[in-house]
Amino acid sequence: MTDAFAFTVAARDGKARAGAIAGPRGMVRTPAFMPVGTGATVKAMFPEDVAAAGADIILANTYHLMLRPGAERIAKLGGLHRFMHWDKPILTDSGGYQVMSLAKLRRIDEDGVTFQSHIDGATLTLTPERAIEVQCLLGADIQMVLDECTPFPATREEADASLEMSLRWARRCKTAFSGHGGPGQALFGIVQGSVYPELREKSAQALIETGFDGYAIGGLAVGEGQAAMLDMVEVTAAILPQERPRYLMGVGTPDDLLLAIAHGIDMFDCVMPTRSGRHCQAFTWGGKLNLRNARYADDATPLDPESSCPAAQYERAYLHHLVKSGETLGAMLLSYANVQFYQELMARAREAIEQGGFAKFSETVRRRYADANNDAG
Amino acid sequence: MTDAFAFTVAARDGKARAGAIAGPRGMVRTPAFMPVGTGATVKAMFPEDVAAAGADIILANTYHLMLRPGAERIAKLGGLHRFMHWDKPILTDSGGYQVMSLAKLRRIDEDGVTFQSHIDGATLTLTPERAIEVQCLLGADIQMVLDECTPFPATREEADASLEMSLRWARRCKTAFSGHGGPGQALFGIVQGSVYPELREKSAQALIETGFDGYAIGGLAVGEGQAAMLDMVEVTAAILPQERPRYLMGVGTPDDLLLAIAHGIDMFDCVMPTRSGRHCQAFTWGGKLNLRNARYADDATPLDPESSCPAAQYERAYLHHLVKSGETLGAMLLSYANVQFYQELMARAREAIEQGGFAKFSETVRRRYADANNDAG
Repeated sequence: MTDAFAFTVAARDGKARAGAIAGPRGMVRTPAFMPVGTGATVKAMFPEDVAAAGADIILANTYHLMLRPGAERIAKLGGLHRFMHWDKPILTDSGGYQVMSLAKLRRIDEDGVTFQSHIDGATLTLTPERAIEVQCLLGADIQMVLDECTPFPATREEADASLEMSLRWARRCKTAFSGHGGPGQALFGIVQGSVYPELREKSAQALIETGFDGYAIGGLAVGEGQAAMLDMVEVTAAILPQERPRYLMGVGTPDDLLLAIAHGIDMFDCVMPTRSGRHCQAFTWGGKLNLRNARYADDATPLDPESSCPAAQYERAYLHHLVKSGETLGAMLLSYANVQFYQELMARAREAIEQGGFAKFSETVRRRYADANNDAG
Repeated sequence: MTDAFAFTVAARDGKARAGAIAGPRGMVRTPAFMPVGTGATVKAMFPEDVAAAGADIILANTYHLMLRPGAERIAKLGGLHRFMHWDKPILTDSGGYQVMSLAKLRRIDEDGVTFQSHIDGATLTLTPERAIEVQCLLGADIQMVLDECTPFPATREEADASLEMSLRWARRCKTAFSGHGGPGQALFGIVQGSVYPELREKSAQALIETGFDGYAIGGLAVGEGQAAMLDMVEVTAAILPQERPRYLMGVGTPDDLLLAIAHGIDMFDCVMPTRSGRHCQAFTWGGKLNLRNARYADDATPLDPESSCPAAQYERAYLHHLVKSGETLGAMLLSYANVQFYQELMARAREAIEQGGFAKFSETVRRRYADANNDAG
């Protein structure tokens, strides 16, 4: 434990790297996958099971929490960690992405975003300063700058204008954070630039000049396809400083994660393990299963014989019965098993990197996740 | 542990009694409350938490399981205990009650009930012999005779005819069970007779003559009101043999349970703790709370400071947030806390009986559950 935010790379294998982020609330082993706890809960999971699954850090959504139950209320109740019974690190996004995707009547200008709550229609404004204030009220360990997630597709000119405003907002966030951020708390910049390599470079360079504790790559996994996404990851990661963590936002499938780790990405978040768990899908070491499939009705095999997750020890026939019957326990068990699978995937990736065998490990897992081996969604 | 089914009364306090049912799958401390696991799951709970909450036994519904996933399938998969990861005793009802309340196009005659599945419309027949066969396929430790739960209200003549058929079915069940029941498994008879004391006496006497391992009181909590219910419980319990467990089916509120224990009831089942948990209601040692109530939005008090349940340690403000947001974790935590409250209620009742202070204990708890102290539903 340390009071300062610190990132160390312990091993490299090609461009892939294994290390750790230290901070006052404990160590985050990297590559790290952050389960998403949108509304102060990783859906359908007890917080102690999220920790037992191996998660060192979770992501919470600023947009949702500022609307309900409200950041000031959470602060008064002792902060987000205490509120949601999670004492390890929390990363919060800035709220910008969800304002664009969920809120009604958005108006973006240089000052920030004015929008209507999708819950009660109240008119609210999110500025760079307010985004930091809210994240500080929540008590987030890693905070994100407010940016505009450039819509896809965007022309070069649109993408350029968008990233320029995001850069100005990033600087305002840094100023606000300097006044409000607590000891050991960190602020990450976010690289934008759509699918234009020169814009990604420009955005990254400008953020590095401003100086952040870590750098995220945003505006991807929004419809550009895996190849374009990985191109942008490669271009951007090559520029980002070696001594800072790199975070690919909102990604992804096991295949995406392994390919991005190979480009030097250290952190990920995605709703996939929990959302899939609520939709009858299981990530296992043998591939992806759809438990609604009738083939599992009499299958006495444990969900994932290769996993050490308690939830993965349940037999497929029972899980099939639960999901067919719409029983909550089905979503509970599959969410737990999926979150743990993602953590085990990161643990094995770290181990492979340390042993210099990442490429082989990645190839083996990716082959198991090739479409032909998986149930139709 | 013993291979035989055995019931012992260890302490008495007035007509209330504390004891234990022993059997090959472990001890059931009485008075016992059985959480309901309708579809092979106590809704929204991990089976290990049901055990951690203090439950020695659960109830599973024959009707639901014979329709989905099917009793033969469960038997092939190793029986219900293994299927649902619950290695303690299970009591199954006969399926009769749910056939009457859920199935379509019912036809009752002397042979049994013909009905259409509410799930897929298939036509099925439930006879006394099939009810026992299904419960044996499931591997239930305590099985119930098939009976007709006499509808309420019923004339004396209707109630009499109904209980007479139930008595003939009970004898057929006993014959079937003699051929199929495994070692340590038990069969309970069910007293009917609507709200007519002389019919309750007649039903009880006839069942005692046939001879069962335990006796249930059925056909109550169907609209007759608490006073009439307790009158029937008192009349019936007075006749039932001292050396057999007495089970009041489908009851009820903490108030109902305490009043029935005072009449010598040993076992209960009810969906109330889990169903209420899914509907934002919490049973606590301070009374019943409705967590949707806005008064809890800023309440940093634990759900139930007097409970040792892990789920009851969560703050009311957080639970309010979860239920307002429709988060599954709200139902998970409230179901767990409620199931444990019911188990703690039984544990304290047993202790009070052993110490000769049951009347005072009952009065104290019932006062806390008086309407004025509770949130509106």
